[in-house]
Amino acid sequence: MTTTVAHLSRLRLDLAYDGTGFHGWAAQPGLRTVEGLLTESLETILRSPVQLTVAGRTDAGVHARGQVAHFDVPDEALQNAQGRSLDALTGLERRVNALLARASTDPKGSSDVVVHSIRRAEPGFDARFSALSRTYTYQVCDDPRAYDPLQRAMTLWVPHTLDVVAMNRAAAALLGEHDFLAFCKPREGATTIRTLLACESRRQGPVVTFTVQADAFCHSMVRTLVGTLLRVGDGSRTEEWPAQRLQGRIRDGEVVVAPPHPLTLERVEYPSPEQFAARANMTRARRSAGDETDCCGE
Amino acid sequence: MTTTVAHLSRLRLDLAYDGTGFHGWAAQPGLRTVEGLLTESLETILRSPVQLTVAGRTDAGVHARGQVAHFDVPDEALQNAQGRSLDALTGLERRVNALLARASTDPKGSSDVVVHSIRRAEPGFDARFSALSRTYTYQVCDDPRAYDPLQRAMTLWVPHTLDVVAMNRAAAALLGEHDFLAFCKPREGATTIRTLLACESRRQGPVVTFTVQADAFCHSMVRTLVGTLLRVGDGSRTEEWPAQRLQGRIRDGEVVVAPPHPLTLERVEYPSPEQFAARANMTRARRSAGDETDCCGE
Repeated sequence: MTTTVAHLSRLRLDLAYDGTGFHGWAAQPGLRTVEGLLTESLETILRSPVQLTVAGRTDAGVHARGQVAHFDVPDEALQNAQGRSLDALTGLERRVNALLARASTDPKGSSDVVVHSIRRAEPGFDARFSALSRTYTYQVCDDPRAYDPLQRAMTLWVPHTLDVVAMNRAAAALLGEHDFLAFCKPREGATTIRTLLACESRRQGPVVTFTVQADAFCHSMVRTLVGTLLRVGDGSRTEEWPAQRLQGRIRDGEVVVAPPHPLTLERVEYPSPEQFAARANMTRARRSAGDETDCCGE
Repeated sequence: MTTTVAHLSRLRLDLAYDGTGFHGWAAQPGLRTVEGLLTESLETILRSPVQLTVAGRTDAGVHARGQVAHFDVPDEALQNAQGRSLDALTGLERRVNALLARASTDPKGSSDVVVHSIRRAEPGFDARFSALSRTYTYQVCDDPRAYDPLQRAMTLWVPHTLDVVAMNRAAAALLGEHDFLAFCKPREGATTIRTLLACESRRQGPVVTFTVQADAFCHSMVRTLVGTLLRVGDGSRTEEWPAQRLQGRIRDGEVVVAPPHPLTLERVEYPSPEQFAARANMTRARRSAGDETDCCGE
């Protein structure tokens, strides 16, 4: 018996999207999703099935400036994008952006999702498992007089002045490796242990921006962290409250999940290429390999 | 015969809006406009007719961060906003913003227009005729790889790298008082003489922002200036071309009106309060007073 082995290339996609018009990243039948639209566009051009793997599975309404995904494509399918190897990637990038723009819900036809680059992945690269960490920002404005309607698609407007120093003190107690059950929608069989690398807020005039970085996030974790810290910032809870909830693994009616529209996946951090495979193996081992109930995004 | 004179207060409104969901500033029957929505909201609260005068009559799709308007209200109507004088203004501001948020087309209910402040105007103040100048910005991105979908509501995406230095040299020749017929949609009986105070582009990474300031603008003037300069920036026309069109008062098929969505009225400049009335009288005299075909916005 002879086995025909198709030669596959792994492609890395860097992309950005306005989450407003999408039901999140993950493909869902009958709903407009980033994964669904991107997969359909790639399959149209390549005339071959595409299975995307993404670094951050963003929720409905959440944006991305620096999302990363990969997929494997047979070399003969890649040729459908254009004649030669390097040109095929440029051709694929242009044609996929043209299709995405055509599928935009925007009356002006400007695209709400764009692929910034498509390139051959380094050996061992996995968009999800090679990632060291994900960094999200969350934008809040606490002065109604400074409300900028042009920024409203990505800003939460709160009526009380926020105490940034108190929020940062409270956040400091959450840094490091912990069981973040109190800040997660847990999924059966999946761990809620994560390493929170950064969690701080900065004020620029009336706009307070949270930056939250972790090795990975459970479902709703960034929004629950921000929602909890906002209650410290407006004085309705003490600075100790978030750490008490973390330590007590408390999930109750006081859990405040901040709305999704001010949340943006800014970037995904990867190690140097020679460490891609090692990192992926380590991550898979830690988070029960192939377990689709595990979440590595937000 | 006795005449009853109602005592009127002139109120100044500072406001901002995302122009995407509006058919421009000016009220039009059956269309969602900023003037229409704002007038309706004010009349609901004050239970009195409201006639707004605005500094910049923005076109459909054009945004504003620093728009200014005024209207005159009988003191007894103002009391409908709240009990006492000062409180009435605060009450009016809060209630009008609540109505504007309720009328938002945004599924999340965040408002696409907001009144930043309502206050008693200084004596002699006229939002339109007291203004010294209007400043608009126009945002263009010339690197497809840096396209930010979150900024697309206010950015023009062009495929060729723009030569900012060439555009600024070309723009320098347009500064000062000229007949801007070549850059206007003229209206019968209205002058097209304007004083262009600033017209320059600046690059920040892949984003080129034009700043254009004039005593007043004819209809489509900013967008025609930008559209003309973009043809210099992408190398399809010489640096002398815009000045040639200005001097020749040329209006032909080569007129390029850039799209409205990247255009924002940033601010309106006024003289010190003691000069309000003098400035208004001067402006009215120059631009055929009360002539509604005259345009002072964009």
